[in-house]
This record gives sequence, structure tokens and C-alpha cells, in this order.
Amino acid sequence: MDLKGKDILTAAQFSREDIEHLFAIADDFSARLQKGERLRRLDGKLLATVFYEPSTRTRLSFESAMQRLGGGVVSVAEAKTASSVAKGETLADTVRTIENYADAIVLRHSEVGAAQAAADAASVPILNAGDGAGEHPTQALLDLYTIRAQKGRIDGLRVALVGDLKNGRTVHSLARALSQFKVDFSFVAPAALAMPAEVSDYMRARDFAVEETNDLARTLTKADVVYMTRVQKERFADPKQYDKLKNFYILNRDLVSRAKDNLLVMHPLPRVDEITTDVDSLPNAAYFRQARNGVFIRMALLAEILGG
Amino acid sequence: MDLKGKDILTAAQFSREDIEHLFAIADDFSARLQKGERLRRLDGKLLATVFYEPSTRTRLSFESAMQRLGGGVVSVAEAKTASSVAKGETLADTVRTIENYADAIVLRHSEVGAAQAAADAASVPILNAGDGAGEHPTQALLDLYTIRAQKGRIDGLRVALVGDLKNGRTVHSLARALSQFKVDFSFVAPAALAMPAEVSDYMRARDFAVEETNDLARTLTKADVVYMTRVQKERFADPKQYDKLKNFYILNRDLVSRAKDNLLVMHPLPRVDEITTDVDSLPNAAYFRQARNGVFIRMALLAEILGG
Amino acid sequence: MDLKGKDILTAAQFSREDIEHLFAIADDFSARLQKGERLRRLDGKLLATVFYEPSTRTRLSFESAMQRLGGGVVSVAEAKTASSVAKGETLADTVRTIENYADAIVLRHSEVGAAQAAADAASVPILNAGDGAGEHPTQALLDLYTIRAQKGRIDGLRVALVGDLKNGRTVHSLARALSQFKVDFSFVAPAALAMPAEVSDYMRARDFAVEETNDLARTLTKADVVYMTRVQKERFADPKQYDKLKNFYILNRDLVSRAKDNLLVMHPLPRVDEITTDVDSLPNAAYFRQARNGVFIRMALLAEILGG
Repeated sequence: MDLKGKDILTAAQFSREDIEHLFAIADDFSARLQKGERLRRLDGKLLATVFYEPSTRTRLSFESAMQRLGGGVVSVAEAKTASSVAKGETLADTVRTIENYADAIVLRHSEVGAAQAAADAASVPILNAGDGAGEHPTQALLDLYTIRAQKGRIDGLRVALVGDLKNGRTVHSLARALSQFKVDFSFVAPAALAMPAEVSDYMRARDFAVEETNDLARTLTKADVVYMTRVQKERFADPKQYDKLKNFYILNRDLVSRAKDNLLVMHPLPRVDEITTDVDSLPNAAYFRQARNGVFIRMALLAEILGG
Repeated sequence: MDLKGKDILTAAQFSREDIEHLFAIADDFSARLQKGERLRRLDGKLLATVFYEPSTRTRLSFESAMQRLGGGVVSVAEAKTASSVAKGETLADTVRTIENYADAIVLRHSEVGAAQAAADAASVPILNAGDGAGEHPTQALLDLYTIRAQKGRIDGLRVALVGDLKNGRTVHSLARALSQFKVDFSFVAPAALAMPAEVSDYMRARDFAVEETNDLARTLTKADVVYMTRVQKERFADPKQYDKLKNFYILNRDLVSRAKDNLLVMHPLPRVDEITTDVDSLPNAAYFRQARNGVFIRMALLAEILGG
Repeated sequence: MDLKGKDILTAAQFSREDIEHLFAIADDFSARLQKGERLRRLDGKLLATVFYEPSTRTRLSFESAMQRLGGGVVSVAEAKTASSVAKGETLADTVRTIENYADAIVLRHSEVGAAQAAADAASVPILNAGDGAGEHPTQALLDLYTIRAQKGRIDGLRVALVGDLKNGRTVHSLARALSQFKVDFSFVAPAALAMPAEVSDYMRARDFAVEETNDLARTLTKADVVYMTRVQKERFADPKQYDKLKNFYILNRDLVSRAKDNLLVMHPLPRVDEITTDVDSLPNAAYFRQARNGVFIRMALLAEILGG
């Protein structure tokens, strides 16, 4: 798929070939930055970052990627309190306005489907940076890229997704993206936070081996990659329910020592207590490297979507 | 008038010649961007955007314009909560500080006269991006530029300004700017939201035909341009009064079909319900094109004020 | 000391030689900008500004300095409300993430020691832009630079630090930085706001003549530099105590006229009522020039830390 001018709405839109093509570009950018090269592929281009829910991490990652390619940024870090929204403007109108100020729009919104709605209204590319409990496709790409970078391959691995699989949009997007590869899945969650049926069914319909369990320790003895997630406090109506579930899984150094050799430990961040800090210094810990990989893969995406 | 180093405080400061000069520069920039040319006229220059009232639209438009010319931006998106203001700093002191960080300052403030006060204190150019119910001169320029671009001329047109003419600074500035051309005016408002006497009197004193009416449908049968405005909720002390007036005028597809041919429909945005969305796809609808034109005319202004 | 890759945590880390080296670079940058030269020393580099306490002044000063050298910026203007912090992320995790998006991090935080903690976690340079009532080393450098620029030297001067010496981190950092020069000190404060013993003791241990007094008028008859400070409302638990102390010292035109000739009047800004506005137009008033000097000295620092 030629990405030029395309919206990025769901991890499911990428073929295996697309993903490997983006990896190659990201590798190239990474190597050239490492050598101190100044990249100017997007000189003169502007990216708008419009965040209805604040997100330091994703916003800065995109803004860094754009500038590393010589482009510029206009930013609405807290769109919910922005004047036009407070005055009652619809998302469609906001997008049709902001597209006059930039060549593409990165959108974070609290409602599922917001990125699609924005793309329907916009004439410039919309990049979904998270739509409520929906999707977060560029996070999925950076997660895949990290697995490939650390393990050398994705095919043949068992990936355990752990924690709040119900509300975590990153695991929804990651599961879909991984389905382009030959992967075995373990979905590890308490019943109240289980993976939505639509994701599990999607995997099974495509002949993936999916194990659903709540036993983290046993899963770790066979998993190659464990992807921990934060229980999403902001998605709970009942604080007591949150308190009961928030520390259901805690990955510590002891658990890692009893896991399969070379277990890769990932987390989309921010973490609260799901991974104890004594894991940080282990070679298994890849979660801060994920953040770095996010810049390279977003550079690749922006270059493909906007590049000349 | 040579704009180099000048403040932009009121639409009344521009002669017809100034306006046409800015149009020519904006046309040129627009054409060169269209061809993919990279403009660098303001390379090395910095613009500060300081917004005491948040405004996504105007702030991003200026920041986009500056960067499209190769310049950079420092931004205070929510100056009211900024630490120095919270600590009790005066506007004069804030401006005398920020002028050390940039070559010009774009100021949005809630009080009429704030831009003039800032200009009195500052040694760098101040661009008024809205001072309470006062003026918004760059909005007026982009409105004129849109009329000229869509109609091919401004002289000889009847322009209807509709809605909250009392509190709408954009219509105050637009009326003043239009007074440089041979235009007939219809001011369409309920009595409680009528155009302030100082604006109406200013027009009449300069021998303009000004019709004041509250009948939108009849006005549309003769107007060439209708400029709808939002009733400014934030300027009402009494919410009941706002509720009574907010939907006094609603322009819909049916009204447009019964209007004069080629009616140009404009709105400074954001809209709430003043124009129904079924108007958006009509060729008459120019309101999103206004946003695009805003970037070109602000590029022209910045180039003239800061350019070498 | 070679500053390349170094953290900037305390004013005490700079030797006299370091300071004079930075002055020379700042002078050079200032002269070249004055001539209209475009500097590109940091082209391709990115600076992250991360402010847990908002500070328009310091944030914009760093962002301006970075861009004046051709670099780019990613910014978190209100980190306290940022999503990752609201979700419970530690400062160490935030820093270990953001270091993937930029080549150095400017950090403002409400807690003493936060910059050191960030530096312990980070692999990129951390620049302390204020840590609670702790230090503000780049403010100290710009203050020194202003004294040198206005007086031609620092050695041999009597410097009076006045006001909230207890909570004012700028005076803590300035006193430490001045200790590299042959200076006499007057600490002028009411007992409740006296300079912390650790700073006074540090000065005396290094054989500085330190006068502690609460008599401003008498001090001014012999001081060459008076450094006024705002009583830091936000550090008071008891509002009555604040009200009692806030206007303890007010420097007005009359006091300046009775002071030693050529008294240099400084203030880190924002001021509230500590200096009356009738002082602003006197040649003695250097406080707005301080802001300008801040850009040059921060350019020098950034160039040394990040430059190739």
C-alpha cells in the first residue's frame, strides 16, 4: 500500500508488507541519525497535534519525529479546554479548520471512532493517536518494531498480553497488528478485564492459537514476549472495582528469573505498579527502548504519508 | 504605509492601498506554496503568541503562517494560568519581558484596549489577535481577502453582517476595513444585539448606505455577501438572555436557495447552530476557505512587519 | 570544565573560569545576532522543556535561545496536568521516556532535589530551571552576566540581596555563583525571611564579608547592586503571614535617588509591588535587560552542552 496522503486509523489497515517496509525506513532513519546526519525530508511541511485527552508521551513522540525530519509543528495540547471546543464546535468543524494550518493532523480523542469521523471530514491525512478504548495504531507499530529489533523476528514467538485487556486500546491495536505474523497469543487477564470478544474472535477466525488465562506465572514459562499494561483507572465508573483490580498482576524480578530465557518485557507506559523498578536494569526490560523506537517508526510513517 | 516594525491594532489603520498591497503579497505566497516552493523570508525570526483567552484557530493560524515563511514560534497558549500572571504581573511587564524572546508578539486578551496598552509598553510590534469585544484586525483582513478572492472585487457589493453585532469584535473590525471600499451595508440583528452606535455612526459619517434591520430573509434577496456570527455566550451576564437570542438567526439551505444568486456565505467560526451543516457542501459556503485565506494574509502581514 | 553532555544542577558547579567562558560565548552570540547573522550551531538538535510548575519567562527564554541557534523544541508547559503524571508516573520514568524525544531536558519542578533526581535517571543532560525553593542556576548566570555587562566587572562590588531570601531560589543560586568573585554581600530581609543558614554559612566559610540586616535604605547608600525579590506567596502556608510580609521592602524612585551613584537595580521578575514603576525609566533599572541577557547566556549554555 502506498501510504502517501493516507489516513492511519487502525492497526488492521497494514499488511505484513507495509509493516516490513516501514521497519526498513525506520531502520534507515535510525542509522542516519546515529551517524549525526541531519534529515530534511519534511522541510517545509507542518504537522498539527490535536489532543482532546492530554498525552505527553505520544504528542512529544510525534513532534520529535516531525522535527527530526526537518518539519514543523503546531500543537493543541489540551483541545478540550480550547476555546472553539468550549464554544460548542463539532469535531468535524474543528478538523476542517485545522487542516488549513497543517499538512496532516495527529488526533487523540476520548471517543471510539473519533479518528474515523475526523478522517471523513478532513481532506488532509488523519493519524489516530488513540480514540478512547478504541485503537492506537502507531503504538502497535512501535511495539512490533521493538519486538523485531530485540528478537530479530516476530514469526514463531509467543506473545503474552497482560492486564487490562478490556480497556487497553494499545493491546487491541497490537493484537491486530501481530495477526500479520505467525504468532501464538496468551491473553492474561482477570475475567472483569478480559479481551473483548471481537478481538479474540478476530484472532481465532484467522486460525491463531489463543490461550486465555489468568495465570501470569505459568504463562511466563513459555512466553517470549510479555506485554504488561496499566489498569486504566480513567475508564472505571466504580473506584472500588478499580482498587480491587489495579494490582492484579505485578511483574517483578523474581517472576522474570523464573520465566523463559530471554523473555522480552514490554509496557506502553506510563506504568504505575505493574512492573517493579528492580526489573528496569535487567536486559529483558525493553519499555524505555519502546519510546525511542516510537520516534523512528513515526518518522517512517510521516515520511511515507507526507514525503515528496 | 510601510508596515515594517509597525503594530497592528485596529482594522481602521489600513488604507485601501495597504490592503491591496497585502492582497498581492498573499496571492504571491499562496501561488508559490501551491507550487511546492519552500519560503524562507522569515528564517531566523521568532514570533511569540500570547493568548490570555485561548483560541486554537487564531493561534494556530499565526503559528502556521510564521513557519510557512521559515520562522519559529514561542507560545503561551493559556496566559491567564501562566505563572507570572497568576503571581500578579501586569500586562505591561509581561510584554516588556516577552519582547526579549521574540521579534513580534501576537496578543489575544479579554479586555478592550489591551493590545494598545501592550503596544505602548513594547518595543517590538504587537499584533492584536482580539481584545475583548474590541477589535480583531487580522480577521478583518482575511475576511476582505476571502470576499475579493471569491467575488473578484469588493467595490459595489452589498454585505450583510448578521447576528451578535454588539459583542462580535470580528464584525466591528470588518465593518471598519470594508469602509475603505465602496460597499453597501446591511446590519441584521435583534435590537438587543445591534451594532454599537460608534460603528454605525462611523459608517454613516463616511457616507455609507447602512440599512439596519432584523429581517434576514429579505436582506438575503439583495445581499452579495452574508457574514453570519455566533451569539457570544461568554459576553452575557444573564444565561436566560443568551438562550433567548442564541438561535435568533439560522441560515439553512432553504434560505440560501431563496437568496440572491451567488450569495457568498461567510462565518468567522467556530459556529454553533447559526449555519446548518447542509449549507457546507454548497458552492456558496466560504467559511472553511476563510481559515485557509487567513494563513496567506497573516503570512503577508508578518513578512511586511518583520521581513528584511 | 568541558560542559559537553553535562547536567546543570546548581550554580555552585561553575568555576570562575567556566562563567567567564560562558560570558565570552554569550557576548559573541549577542554581537552576531545584533548584526542580523543567522546562527545554526544547534540545527537538528531538539530541546525538551518540561515544566511541572508553569513559568512563561524561563520556558520561553530557553525555547527562544534554542531556536536562535537553529534548534527545535518539544514542550510540556503544564506537566502537572499531563496525562502520564496524572496517571501516577514517577519523575524518573517521565524523564527516561522524554529523553527519547530530545537531546536535553529543561526541568522546572516544585520539589527541591527534583533536578538531581532527574539527572540520576536520565542519560541526556538535565538543565535545572528551578526546583522548588532549591536552585535556579541559569537565572544566576544571567544575573551575573547582567552585572558584568552593566558594571563592566563583578569583582569589588557590594551586592545587596533583598526581600524573600528564605524562599527565593534565585538568590540562593546567585549568592553561590557570586562566590566565584570578590564580592561583598548585604543580605536584607525581615527575620522571618532571612537567608537560610546553609547559604550564609557557605559564604562565611569562604571568607566573604556578609552583612545581614533589615535596613534597606542604609544598605543602599553603599551597595553597587541591589537585587530585589518578590515575597513568594506560593511558599506560605499562612496567608496572614504573607500579607504581613509582602510589602516589607518597596524600592521607589526616592530611595534610588538617595542611594549610591550608579546603583544597579535588578529583579528576577515577575515583580508585584517590590519596585514601583517610576523606577522603570531610570538608567539604573536593569530588570528587563536581565530577561534579554537570559537568552544570550542560555544560548551559550545550550551551545556548550549540545554543540558539536
